[in-house]
Amino acid sequence: MSILVVGSVALDTVETPFARKEEALGGAASYFSTAASLYNQVNLVAVVGSDFPREYLDFWRSRPINLAGLQIREGRTFRWVARYHMDMNTRDTLDTQLGVYAGFHPVLPDEHRSCPLLFLANIQPELQMEVLEQMPRTCLTVLDTMELWIKTTRPQLTEVIKRVDVLLMSEEEVRQYTNQPSILGGVRHLLGLGPEFVVVKLGSYGALLFGADGTYFSAPAHPLEEVIDPTGAGDAFAGGMLGYLSTLESEPDGRYSIDDLKRAVVHGNILGSFVCEDFSIERLRTLTMDDIAARYQALVACSHFDPHWLPMRIR
Amino acid sequence: MSILVVGSVALDTVETPFARKEEALGGAASYFSTAASLYNQVNLVAVVGSDFPREYLDFWRSRPINLAGLQIREGRTFRWVARYHMDMNTRDTLDTQLGVYAGFHPVLPDEHRSCPLLFLANIQPELQMEVLEQMPRTCLTVLDTMELWIKTTRPQLTEVIKRVDVLLMSEEEVRQYTNQPSILGGVRHLLGLGPEFVVVKLGSYGALLFGADGTYFSAPAHPLEEVIDPTGAGDAFAGGMLGYLSTLESEPDGRYSIDDLKRAVVHGNILGSFVCEDFSIERLRTLTMDDIAARYQALVACSHFDPHWLPMRIR
Repeated sequence: MSILVVGSVALDTVETPFARKEEALGGAASYFSTAASLYNQVNLVAVVGSDFPREYLDFWRSRPINLAGLQIREGRTFRWVARYHMDMNTRDTLDTQLGVYAGFHPVLPDEHRSCPLLFLANIQPELQMEVLEQMPRTCLTVLDTMELWIKTTRPQLTEVIKRVDVLLMSEEEVRQYTNQPSILGGVRHLLGLGPEFVVVKLGSYGALLFGADGTYFSAPAHPLEEVIDPTGAGDAFAGGMLGYLSTLESEPDGRYSIDDLKRAVVHGNILGSFVCEDFSIERLRTLTMDDIAARYQALVACSHFDPHWLPMRIR
Repeated sequence: MSILVVGSVALDTVETPFARKEEALGGAASYFSTAASLYNQVNLVAVVGSDFPREYLDFWRSRPINLAGLQIREGRTFRWVARYHMDMNTRDTLDTQLGVYAGFHPVLPDEHRSCPLLFLANIQPELQMEVLEQMPRTCLTVLDTMELWIKTTRPQLTEVIKRVDVLLMSEEEVRQYTNQPSILGGVRHLLGLGPEFVVVKLGSYGALLFGADGTYFSAPAHPLEEVIDPTGAGDAFAGGMLGYLSTLESEPDGRYSIDDLKRAVVHGNILGSFVCEDFSIERLRTLTMDDIAARYQALVACSHFDPHWLPMRIR
């Protein structure tokens, strides 16, 4: 099954305490597409300017990434400049230049409108809604967002949340949006709005999957020797998650099983961890399905323990 | 097998954004003993003042807790006053009154010196060393510490680390002590000092177990609806860990298997989570082995996933 993604494509300049990378391929849709294309065909809907490097287009064309929905407009590509601090978990955005992204409205080619899997990356909720209105039926819609939309366009974000199957949020975003002291309380509030699943991304601590049916799953993180650049980890997470789901046949009613979703979250952690190992999408260029399978086995090995323990007197 | 613990017993006044508790039973050794006594006999070595409430002594005597090593000195019991912030992960210490603890030196009754399992709670490294010198042989020695000793008595702490089998540290303590950007690098440094295992406590994210043999295990946390008071969670963690190990027969060479240690860390998370559900040691008063077994099963259910996934073309 193919996957449709709508989101930003950018040129990122990222500085860490250890290195700096100038105007590299960035943006949520770039990370997502590159990650998900390891599993299946991706249809990319986004906008870039006339200055967008041809090498990135060529790279995507070398992958199963359909660019029919990629608008190339006269003007400058979206640029983002950020600096990470010593702990690599906090960063400052130093500059944002919207360029052609300022006037972006997603237009889906007809061939994309029946795509079964949809990822709404963290663009403005109004644009996410425009996409939903162009796609009457999907098999699964997954939504990401960011602090900016929680703060500035909360009502519109809420309308989108009500219409999706899976909502991705970081722990901080859950607290910001729900204002609940516990994550459990916050997630209950979010599930009450409509999504069947909420995935809480915990960065270097892994991710949590919550289902409206009471499902709770804690997926382990892969520990990294060195984090080169955590930019795009959440987008690559979504790419791994939807990429994995695209390899399955869904249930007859179009739904996935809980075990499918658990494996999908594990794949999310795997792709999220790989992307941190280099700047931009660099690590994903050489990544193979064998690397993914090896890390999957490493996560099984590090998180499973004896399921049969009982107190002595009960045994 | 019985367990020896040396550490602080205190009267804690704790304020959270939601409630306040005055002069309740606190101190690392109190939390540890109460937790571990659910599994086996605990020998408590500590000091209290002549004002120490009799009801707490009576409570301990109602449990398999041997008080032969508890010194009762003329004067005031150690008092600690703290306030938690809204996220319950950060706190300010408002007051510390050492009282009789100021002149404390642990003196082990002869009957305790052959105790197979030893927990050195987070007291001064000099006192921890005095304990080690009174116990020529143990089966397993577990060490806890705190930021204060990393900052003020680092050389003495290092000498103790070199002599123990298992080191417990929070993620922040690993960074403070080792000054390494990655936890993996920090843990490698710590294992290089001598311990066979390092356990990194991640609070609400669970705990990580690292072995000198390359073992890596990520233990899930139990998600709590409401955290009433996180004080003592790390000490109860140690109590669950050593409590569980005390129920096993160790290998002929006095060592535990990796699977034993994994289960022990899971028990640590279980006891650590229960203690947060009320102030002081209150939740541990009513806790039963059935409660522990039920939470063990909940942790299995929320962390295990399909171990057999392979990419399609390899299958």
